[in-house]
Parts: sequence; structure tokens; C-alpha cells
Amino acid sequence: MTQSQKAGVFLDLHRTQRPLVLPNAWDVPSARIFEEAGFPALATTSAGIANLLGYPDGQHIPRSEMLDMVARIARAVQIPVTADMEAGYGDASETARGVIEAGAVGLNLEDSKADASHSLVDIGEQCAAISAVREIADTLNVPLVINARTDVFLGSSVPLEQRLDEAVRRLSAYAQAGADSLFVPGLREESVIQQLVQRVHRPLNILLTEGTPSIAGLGELGVARVTIGSGGMRATLGLVRRIARDLHDSGSVEPMLEDPMSYLDANTLLGSTR
Amino acid sequence: MTQSQKAGVFLDLHRTQRPLVLPNAWDVPSARIFEEAGFPALATTSAGIANLLGYPDGQHIPRSEMLDMVARIARAVQIPVTADMEAGYGDASETARGVIEAGAVGLNLEDSKADASHSLVDIGEQCAAISAVREIADTLNVPLVINARTDVFLGSSVPLEQRLDEAVRRLSAYAQAGADSLFVPGLREESVIQQLVQRVHRPLNILLTEGTPSIAGLGELGVARVTIGSGGMRATLGLVRRIARDLHDSGSVEPMLEDPMSYLDANTLLGSTR
Repeated sequence: MTQSQKAGVFLDLHRTQRPLVLPNAWDVPSARIFEEAGFPALATTSAGIANLLGYPDGQHIPRSEMLDMVARIARAVQIPVTADMEAGYGDASETARGVIEAGAVGLNLEDSKADASHSLVDIGEQCAAISAVREIADTLNVPLVINARTDVFLGSSVPLEQRLDEAVRRLSAYAQAGADSLFVPGLREESVIQQLVQRVHRPLNILLTEGTPSIAGLGELGVARVTIGSGGMRATLGLVRRIARDLHDSGSVEPMLEDPMSYLDANTLLGSTR
Repeated sequence: MTQSQKAGVFLDLHRTQRPLVLPNAWDVPSARIFEEAGFPALATTSAGIANLLGYPDGQHIPRSEMLDMVARIARAVQIPVTADMEAGYGDASETARGVIEAGAVGLNLEDSKADASHSLVDIGEQCAAISAVREIADTLNVPLVINARTDVFLGSSVPLEQRLDEAVRRLSAYAQAGADSLFVPGLREESVIQQLVQRVHRPLNILLTEGTPSIAGLGELGVARVTIGSGGMRATLGLVRRIARDLHDSGSVEPMLEDPMSYLDANTLLGSTR
């Protein structure tokens, strides 16, 4: 399958699966485990990748380091991979080129500024970035699946009662600019999700976390795509913390030996990627 | 503290702790978690680092990629770091230079051949490698803590009844060649551990795994250093497999949401490393 065909297959999954569940991988083993579990495609978590390489989340990691891990993941699995590229690392077009060169067939682009302000990028500026991504993807002949994300519901300064309208305004503009799907992290309420599904005209992506409806429930609301963000990665950090504290405080190896992957299984998992 | 002083502090821990427990980290968050749990030093796991970057264990990862992660880990923590460098990646002296440049103060060097044969490197050759590491460390003025490992008990072709004698023969030669501590993975039996402690004259490192005596028990046997190898990393892979299967097969997010590290905690953990 060519990369272009793979991108087409990935876009189709937004229609044929109800909803499409995309787990977010942060390294090669997590990607391989998700593939072996039977998922038809996977996403990456920028927070997870940034963390494991030593950076806090929020566009601190250099683009090249993020792309290096995306490429390792895309090389290791057969299924389509979509890459979270935060707000595009300054030049969204160059970033999209890097994503395609890394072997991924989709990307996330968010509208949070790359500073600590939590403020949103100007809507026209974000549309220009999305258009630039579409343009370079066209040039490279890969129908890259652009997942445009708005952070309106993620602690933005938009007043609560205006958030839905502002999200619709932004997401509609992003769709117009070339987005294939629309992502709204921080949204949990059924009624708001339902209204959003009705008011935007692209597949909607919801982040599965504590307090969101079930996957089946999200499907019934009309949500097309469900991701887990850094949830899987942070679950492993919770386990590492339990392992570390037990080992240090009481010498117990119980959380470490409870249900590990065997040495053989771990290497078999990786062996087929070389 | 200079790197040279840090190496001295690390070597001292082999005497003052009974035993010195060194958890093995595979990325920056695991290293930071082990540091925050209170461990006075940490090791790396070459299998874990190789796996996360997409390689099976066993000297498949290029030296530069292994050193890149060692450097990220050493930069992120204040405590001494010792790096597992497998069999030295062809040129143990160059590898030792890389380890020192990466900011680590110790290294593991094993006597398994870099092929699939599981056979052991000739004893004279291994001693030459250890001497070369000591020499470059002296040249660079860092008293690098050399942990010489023998794989006699790890599925080698040495007959069972000759393994103890062969391990003693090898480890004594490695100590003579410049090793500061001696590592024997695959060894679980109390009586054999005790005999080994008595017959070699350097701090002995035992791998803590299913079936080994407790940490306290190992301390009483005279073991100076206890490591966990890829055990922590493989515990996280076990969790990722549970997360993946539950999410895929039943849509359950229970293992993912059971006890994760919060987004804020994960970023705080990494924030201080920049």
C-alpha cells in the first residue's frame, strides 16, 4: 500500500467505524502493543513523547525530536499512524512535510499559543496554518488527514457560556480551511457534545478520559473518533511511581512482578520491526 | 559536584548501603520518579531503552542512540547514573568515552558475544576491554565505576556444574583488569550467591527478579548491589497490554484510569529538568 492509499484508508475509518477508537502511542512498544490488540490505526501523544524524552508538555520539545519518535513508531507498525504535532512548531507546513516524511498519514494541529498564556491563536492565523498544511500535502501527493483541534474548552479565557459558539465558529473555519476532522479536548458533557456534532460538518474527535461518556455512548452521540491522549502513558507513570515507592520504602517487588510482559514477549514484539 | 566526585560518591555507596538498590530507568520520567522516590543513584536498562526506541535487546541498538538516552537521563537527575552498555558496542573504550561525555559515572560491560550464539567472549579479550575502559576513564580523569558482568548463568554453554567455578575465574580476572564491581545476572540460589560473595573480592551485583531472595536477604548474604534490569520497564509493558486489550475488546478504560499520574504531576516531574 502506498502512503497515499494508507491515508485514504485512514480517512475512511472515520466513516466506517462508530466510533473510530485511536489509542495514542508514545514509543515503539506501546505502538506495537496497540497494533497487536487489533486497533485499525493509531495516534501519537505529543505529551507522552515529550515527557519520555525529558520535556514537559506544551511545545517545549524540538520538532525534530518529536518527528524522530513519530518515524520510529510509523516504521514499526503496519496500520496508519496520525501524529500529534501540537501547534505546528512554528512552521506548520514544514512540520507537515516532516510528518509525511516520517511515514505518518495524519496530523493534529492545535490552536493554543506556544507560550504559557493558554491563549488561543487568532482564528485567521490558524486557518492559514491549516491551509498551508493542506497545500504541502497536496504537493507531496499524500491526502494527509488533518485533525484540527481547538482548545476553547481547555482552560481558555473564553467565558463558559460562549465556549460552544466559539468552538463552532473556529471548527467551521478550520473545516473550510482544509481540516478533515475536528478535535475538542476538555469536552465531557453529553448535551454539548451532541450539539457540537450537529453544528459542525466534519467527523468529531473526543478525548476519552475520566468523566466522558463511554465509547459506545460517544458513538451514539455521533462522535466519529475517540482518542486517549496521554492517558495510557500517564497510567504507566502511575505504575512506575508505585514500583519506585514500594521498592524504596519497603523493598517490595510486588507491583513490578504482578503482571509484567515477559522478556521474550517484549523482544518478540520488537523483533518484527527490524 | 564534579563528575569525578560524583563517581567517587557512587563507588562509596557500594560500601555504605547494604545492599545498594539501583533501579534501572529507561527514559526521563522513570529516572525522575526513581530519584523522587529517594534512591541515592540509578542505573539504566539497555533492554528497556532499546525496546522503546524500536530494537529488540541484544546489541541491536546503535551506540549513539543508547548514549543519547543515557545523556537525557543523566541531565535530568542529580543523583549518580550508571549506564548499561551491553558488550561495549564494538569498541569499549569509545563507548566509555561516550558514557562519560553523557554525564554518567559508571557502566556495565557484559561478556556475551554480540551475535545470537549466546556464547561468551574470550576471557582475555574481555579483560582487554575492561582495561581499555579503565585507561580512557583515567585519561579523562573520571574514576568511572566499572561493573563487569558475566553471563555464565544466562543460558551459556558452560555446563551447570562448572558455572560457579567459571564465574569465579572470569570475575576474578575482570577485577584484576580494573572492574570495581561484578554482576552475575541469572543467579537466584542463596547458596551459590553466598559462595560467590566469598570467592570474589569486589562488590557483587545481583539482579532482583522472580525467585531471587528478598533485598534484605541479599544484603545478609553479603550482596553489595541489587538492580532490577528491565523489570520495571516490562511491568509497564504488561500494563499497556492490559489497557490495549480492555480498550479494544470491551471499551473499558479501567486499567488506564485506575491510578495514573496526573497530567500536572507528569509535567511537574519533567519541568524541573529543563
